[in-house]
Amino acid sequence: MRGAVIHGPRDVRFEEREAPKILEPTDAVIRMAATCICGSDLWPYRGISPIDGPSPIGHEYCGVVEEVGRAVRLVQPGQFVIGSFFASDNTCPNCLAGYQTSCQHKVLVGDAQAPMVRVPLADGTLVATPEVPPDGMVPSLLTLSDVMGTGWFAAEAADVKPGKTVAVVGDGAVGLLGVLSARQMGAARIIAMSRHTARQNLAREFGATDIVTERGDEGVARVQSLTGGIGADSVLECVGTQESMIQAIRSTRPGGSVGYVGVPHGVALDGEELFYSHVRLHGGPAPVRRFLPDLIRLVWDGKINPGKVFDLELPLEKVAEGYSAMDERRAIKTLLRP
Amino acid sequence: MRGAVIHGPRDVRFEEREAPKILEPTDAVIRMAATCICGSDLWPYRGISPIDGPSPIGHEYCGVVEEVGRAVRLVQPGQFVIGSFFASDNTCPNCLAGYQTSCQHKVLVGDAQAPMVRVPLADGTLVATPEVPPDGMVPSLLTLSDVMGTGWFAAEAADVKPGKTVAVVGDGAVGLLGVLSARQMGAARIIAMSRHTARQNLAREFGATDIVTERGDEGVARVQSLTGGIGADSVLECVGTQESMIQAIRSTRPGGSVGYVGVPHGVALDGEELFYSHVRLHGGPAPVRRFLPDLIRLVWDGKINPGKVFDLELPLEKVAEGYSAMDERRAIKTLLRP
Repeated sequence: MRGAVIHGPRDVRFEEREAPKILEPTDAVIRMAATCICGSDLWPYRGISPIDGPSPIGHEYCGVVEEVGRAVRLVQPGQFVIGSFFASDNTCPNCLAGYQTSCQHKVLVGDAQAPMVRVPLADGTLVATPEVPPDGMVPSLLTLSDVMGTGWFAAEAADVKPGKTVAVVGDGAVGLLGVLSARQMGAARIIAMSRHTARQNLAREFGATDIVTERGDEGVARVQSLTGGIGADSVLECVGTQESMIQAIRSTRPGGSVGYVGVPHGVALDGEELFYSHVRLHGGPAPVRRFLPDLIRLVWDGKINPGKVFDLELPLEKVAEGYSAMDERRAIKTLLRP
Repeated sequence: MRGAVIHGPRDVRFEEREAPKILEPTDAVIRMAATCICGSDLWPYRGISPIDGPSPIGHEYCGVVEEVGRAVRLVQPGQFVIGSFFASDNTCPNCLAGYQTSCQHKVLVGDAQAPMVRVPLADGTLVATPEVPPDGMVPSLLTLSDVMGTGWFAAEAADVKPGKTVAVVGDGAVGLLGVLSARQMGAARIIAMSRHTARQNLAREFGATDIVTERGDEGVARVQSLTGGIGADSVLECVGTQESMIQAIRSTRPGGSVGYVGVPHGVALDGEELFYSHVRLHGGPAPVRRFLPDLIRLVWDGKINPGKVFDLELPLEKVAEGYSAMDERRAIKTLLRP
């Protein structure tokens, strides 16, 4: 089998790898319907996160179950399934609390840019769709494996409620799906922060009511001026830099909430500033497993179409081109079909 | 009039000051029933917070209204009132959201260790008791001006709920009243972190079910072992140092909450650790004005007796001795009567 392997900064190759097979009785092997490239894959691609030798890459997946281990009860061969980037048992106290990405037995699924993938802890990780979906629905279902669930978690962590004002920092796929999530949760006003016309347009299509093109202190000033000098009720931080975190905190009203899902790189928060801001902070790796049943239902019923974030589709073997398109911001997000 | 003035580290004097009078039509002047010394007063006393020349000090107060400005409508001379350390208009958007300590027009009341105090924005700041209270109730009512409201906010910010497990970092008056607050909110298990017998005893009296004497990593390990390796649902951070914040975050379960009310001194939070902890953070200067009506009712009805945190009572003129007793941890909290 051939799959994606990252060898170093800006060096992703599509090359021969061992095909996955059942190793533990709780495993499943999935035949990929589609996979994709995540904004977080760009951290190692850009050399910001270290790479420890050539490594398979990719953590977003959906497809048809090919085979299951003998202990698997809840999914079976032939079902179309979606799972999270962290496999989870879904029975430990952290899973039961809805934080499956803090599962006591979590395992990273890190080799999904391939035609087949092994998913550990299949019963706790995979959720089946009602039937095998039509081909056109696959992109939207694929987003539930990470970006859509992550945007949803950002909105939930930021305590988005009907009628409230929301600001979204970051116009990548997660930020855009944060806009969509806030809309679904009934936000009255959604301020998307973006300087890119195509992303602004998609933000508006997903429900943004205002666009702010400024960043940093100027971006904060714009959000403050749009909210009567108070700040937004909820702010979604979907980048993970020091600048974006500060921008998010300063754009939030006292007693409001920041939901942060951008993996932090070099972020340090000043305790005193946070204290006097009166801002609530919650975030982390999104427990997308928690949201999968509801989000599958919303996609299945045509209520949301998060697959629109894919503005480039390539055959899996062109994975390297997919990375460079996203790195150069020629594409928001790249879909890969085996 | 004589009142407390801080001249420098460990130099508090009781000396002649100008008596307060009505300066703005929204002011009230209060004749002090009792005032006290706060843990946060020890920061300048110990030279950790800078002092800009001789300054009146003290921010906790209750007593009888002596005089009001012509625009004051809601309180009148003769009423016994309690107010917050930040005066607030209680009408701006931040006040209406319940964050009166982020009032757009807030004014610090910083000269309360005196027989009389001027309170700006009297209508938005002061809450009257049903009648002038008996003398024995004054200490408990006085705590509502800051420490009791602050412990209550810590518990609320930490999302304490009936049946949950709570840990409290800090055994000062705020931490101890955080224990009392968690008990009132129905927590099933309350772990107080303290190495001092007298404070442990008061913590137990206020509702603590477990005492942890270890600090830092060992303290975290003890809380983890008491909670099946998961962490507490809610942790109250009532100190404000880097060590106590880290201890609080690491003692909390994924999806749990830290309520932090210790004024941070030199605290910097690592974004990555916070992200992967899945812990919710909320805190800041407690909006005690929000809680005053309910807490007055609880004291008035004899449901809570937070005044027990005062283990030293002195005449106001002995204020310097009150500071040194707290500095040397000979007293938890000093009550001062004019």
